Amino acid sequence: MEKREVLENIARRLRIHSLKMTTKAGSGHPTTCLSMAELMACLFFDEMRFNPRNPKDWANDEFVISKGHAAPIVWAAYAEAGIIQEKELMNLRKITSVLEGHPTPRMKWIKAATGSLGQGLSVGVGMALAMRMGKSPGRVFVMMGDGECAEGAVWEAANSARYFKLSNLCAVVDINRLGQSEQTMHGHNLEAYERKFQAFGWEVIKIDGHNISQILNAFKRANKAKKPSVILAKTIKGKGVSFLEDKNGWHGKPLKENELKKALEELGPMPEVDAKKYLKHPKSQRIFQLPKRYNFKKNTYREKTATRRAYGNALLSLGRVNQAVVALDGDVKNSTYAEDFFESFPDRSFQTYIAEQNMVGMSLGFSAKGFIPFVATFSAFLSRAHDQIRMAAYSFANIKFVGSHSGVSIGADGPSQMGLEDLAIFRPIPGCACLYPCDAYSTEGCVESMARYKGIAYLRTTRPATPLIYSKNQKFPIGGLKVLKKSSRDRVAVIAAGITVHEALKAYEELKKEGIFVRLIDAYSVEPIDKKNIIREVKEAKRKAVVVEDHFKNGGLGDAVAQALAGKAEISHLAIGKLPRSGKPEELMDRYGINAPHIKKAVKELIKRK
Amino acid sequence: MEKREVLENIARRLRIHSLKMTTKAGSGHPTTCLSMAELMACLFFDEMRFNPRNPKDWANDEFVISKGHAAPIVWAAYAEAGIIQEKELMNLRKITSVLEGHPTPRMKWIKAATGSLGQGLSVGVGMALAMRMGKSPGRVFVMMGDGECAEGAVWEAANSARYFKLSNLCAVVDINRLGQSEQTMHGHNLEAYERKFQAFGWEVIKIDGHNISQILNAFKRANKAKKPSVILAKTIKGKGVSFLEDKNGWHGKPLKENELKKALEELGPMPEVDAKKYLKHPKSQRIFQLPKRYNFKKNTYREKTATRRAYGNALLSLGRVNQAVVALDGDVKNSTYAEDFFESFPDRSFQTYIAEQNMVGMSLGFSAKGFIPFVATFSAFLSRAHDQIRMAAYSFANIKFVGSHSGVSIGADGPSQMGLEDLAIFRPIPGCACLYPCDAYSTEGCVESMARYKGIAYLRTTRPATPLIYSKNQKFPIGGLKVLKKSSRDRVAVIAAGITVHEALKAYEELKKEGIFVRLIDAYSVEPIDKKNIIREVKEAKRKAVVVEDHFKNGGLGDAVAQALAGKAEISHLAIGKLPRSGKPEELMDRYGINAPHIKKAVKELIKRK
Repeated sequence: MEKREVLENIARRLRIHSLKMTTKAGSGHPTTCLSMAELMACLFFDEMRFNPRNPKDWANDEFVISKGHAAPIVWAAYAEAGIIQEKELMNLRKITSVLEGHPTPRMKWIKAATGSLGQGLSVGVGMALAMRMGKSPGRVFVMMGDGECAEGAVWEAANSARYFKLSNLCAVVDINRLGQSEQTMHGHNLEAYERKFQAFGWEVIKIDGHNISQILNAFKRANKAKKPSVILAKTIKGKGVSFLEDKNGWHGKPLKENELKKALEELGPMPEVDAKKYLKHPKSQRIFQLPKRYNFKKNTYREKTATRRAYGNALLSLGRVNQAVVALDGDVKNSTYAEDFFESFPDRSFQTYIAEQNMVGMSLGFSAKGFIPFVATFSAFLSRAHDQIRMAAYSFANIKFVGSHSGVSIGADGPSQMGLEDLAIFRPIPGCACLYPCDAYSTEGCVESMARYKGIAYLRTTRPATPLIYSKNQKFPIGGLKVLKKSSRDRVAVIAAGITVHEALKAYEELKKEGIFVRLIDAYSVEPIDKKNIIREVKEAKRKAVVVEDHFKNGGLGDAVAQALAGKAEISHLAIGKLPRSGKPEELMDRYGINAPHIKKAVKELIKRK
Repeated sequence: MEKREVLENIARRLRIHSLKMTTKAGSGHPTTCLSMAELMACLFFDEMRFNPRNPKDWANDEFVISKGHAAPIVWAAYAEAGIIQEKELMNLRKITSVLEGHPTPRMKWIKAATGSLGQGLSVGVGMALAMRMGKSPGRVFVMMGDGECAEGAVWEAANSARYFKLSNLCAVVDINRLGQSEQTMHGHNLEAYERKFQAFGWEVIKIDGHNISQILNAFKRANKAKKPSVILAKTIKGKGVSFLEDKNGWHGKPLKENELKKALEELGPMPEVDAKKYLKHPKSQRIFQLPKRYNFKKNTYREKTATRRAYGNALLSLGRVNQAVVALDGDVKNSTYAEDFFESFPDRSFQTYIAEQNMVGMSLGFSAKGFIPFVATFSAFLSRAHDQIRMAAYSFANIKFVGSHSGVSIGADGPSQMGLEDLAIFRPIPGCACLYPCDAYSTEGCVESMARYKGIAYLRTTRPATPLIYSKNQKFPIGGLKVLKKSSRDRVAVIAAGITVHEALKAYEELKKEGIFVRLIDAYSVEPIDKKNIIREVKEAKRKAVVVEDHFKNGGLGDAVAQALAGKAEISHLAIGKLPRSGKPEELMDRYGINAPHIKKAVKELIKRK
């Protein structure tokens, strides 16, 4: 059989699978799948090279399904490749199956969870860079929808891809004209997409997305291009079934049984073709391993040092012993101090410019390929990439986030630059570690702990220099705390983290002069919080706790402590309760009630209570 | 004096102000200001028309400083316009001054807080649309930096501006080549920017940003254009001071006293020109008021109804009595049910396509011009616009956010579509109201409460249909709660909201059969939570509470209740503790422990405790 006929048959098999699966599941996006059947057939069974026995073969091409709602046809393609059992397709969306409604890495060939649109291209950029670093012969293919090209993240990624000259990256846009609730902005106007991608420096190839020859030629052209390539494929949503073709209102709707019957009649019997025979393997297998050590040589400090400065030192030291560590920056590296790593390891440092969504998406691509990305920016600006962070969690990624300039303590720049809700972003993520060190030594200890940790971790750093509290080489495990002051006469426990530890220490000394003793706890591990020890320490301190943080009242340390101590202690909570403004750090910490005088006052009031 | 000379002198005054202010403040971004001095002089003292006595004059042109770190020169321009006293400039960044480090509406001429880059153009789009609706003769000018054009949000806004044919919108990009930590991606390559903006459908005008004649001609051209226009101005960062011009490393650095002295020597004496004389007023004053009522006619329900469906009904009813209400959608209106409003009030409905950042930025623009935007999408996708939501809070905006498809209860689509961290986004914002109704009637009541509320409010809705609990016209004030079940024999209080109210009701009935009575509280106002009444109800219920929510463990209702009940009650918290997956709603609620059987179990365990 001629190749074209084989691929058309495979496409038809994919269509039939997609329709049956979604009808069986009672939900899903069949018409979305129908428009991309030829594209998927050509990708999986002619263009891409991958080792069906090993999703981690370093020689593999990578496939990212950015339009995640097309999951059914992706599962169908893997079934045709013999990677999934065909009957498993009928378990789509069941709680017992790895074939979820939108893809997650529960299915081992999926490296990044998708379903929140416009994120796959950034992941592809990260993977392509990783593969270049690891000298993989593989290429990265990102399958996108047209509607998702309205997402700004796509253009951040497009910018990056050109900047990094990623000729090993090929995007395919399934331009089927119809979004979810109406036609997309450009409809079938391919030239509108072409102008945009060309302006962003990409090689653009326009085709009829249902014409196998045009698809194959497009991939040939893309393969030769010296720039990142995008294939703009004009397609019909619902293609192959007359009553679905190009009709609005069918997005996300499975066919009912009688409708399915009609559709299958139109599509004809399941073509007999063993698609596995047409799989292309990479020319050779590859393994790529990087020497990874985590106990880096700690620095010695002699004076007050900002934790953000210590982070920069620690990242550099870690980078010397761990080749998997890469750093990403959004033009703030002189503020976050990632700049030292950037200077020493330029081949492992990636400038994304002011584009945080893409920065995080790229880090997911790096993580998927076995690297350990450290993504640092102002903690406030991590909110720009909250959706990408969310999807990284669902991707079981191994990414280390660092947010500097946390709290009102940054001072006069004002609230747009202050991270006041960053703990609220990371704490909810199941399994995410949130560390908030108060001095340079604990910062380095936390960096080691988070580097070792397999999963998403967040380090919160501070702008101003703060005194040294700990000593070199002390350990700061995730889930721990440190008791800085303790006596048998403690009447209240003061629980702080980061900059408020220093305010608490000042308050401690002043209270001591007045004969009032408090226990001082550095809750540097905000999540998971050391519940057992917090309970024990607070019980000894008369079941009274003052919690003080440079963060909004909700979502941060106060919430964590309230949960831990539920029912066991009286809590007074000092945090930022209003929208703050510009001012000197000391003035702001006073105005918003989180400095030493306020801590003292809260301690005394709590002692009086009940 | 010739106009050109006047404007050059004003530009020099602005430079001198910017340098002195930042040196006095000890912080700020003078070199950023120096590159845009001619642009600002021309904008404020030749091109824009505004009534200096009234920032709210509906005939005014609007100015958005997207590159918010240029605040000093913006303040200087307002001082030259006589709107601020010149001596106040020396109070830049002081805690006592409205002249903050990055602009906020504490200074009355600033309609949107900026400082997180790439957001101003979206605000401009919203304002331009609002002004078109209100038939303002004014135009919108957005001053942008080059570095921020890497932000995807800029391209979402650019897309929208063309789509809405906003010929009353003019962007100016100050292309000074240097970002914060290094050169921008395109440096001084204006053609790179030109290609992009042209591809996105804008009129592009390239100029030397220090040439007054070219600037004035560019504004003339922009004024005539039938599309949105962008003036790409090639400039020199630090222009006017030889040791600053085009030098990296000066971003965000004020001059020291000796450096300032040298700089002022170079700039020469303060030119004597009364800039106020050159202000252009609008041709006439305008007032624009919209009939706003909030008590809309409530709908009657007869069967189980999804709260998202009730939201759609309520929005439509509200829209009938309140002309200030506008709706924005990111291609999910058939899921959020904003579609009914879109159908009835197409002139008040704005499709942003799949671009949530821009959708929120636009809503800020609408809010700034006196409208009441309702922004609805999947709660999960609001995370895409978290930074814009954050900045809207600092803008003291009046925006109503609605997140549908909350929780695992959406079912088989899986986690990418589930909002599980949305309460954690909104709860931290000081002054933000978070409402989570459990049935159709409370949804309509909550919509009324949030519409009346002046500020940011968030409504969390659910995908599946749920039974009717309340009755028509019942009130659901922000900060309230409802006690659904109460007796003198209550041994535990069960606190729920949204979908878990129904699970709690099932558990209540089953427990009752076993002779166990619980108090059932619908904490529909998650923030602010009704602390006083929760304490009172839980005290009566033996100081034991089971809190159950369809949200991650951290950041949501559990945290809110733990804070409220600190020290007063034992709490058992049921929430989503793991990264969830696809499955049927009932199966997922069971697997993740938030359904009736789990509530029962938790109640019994809590009764046994202590």
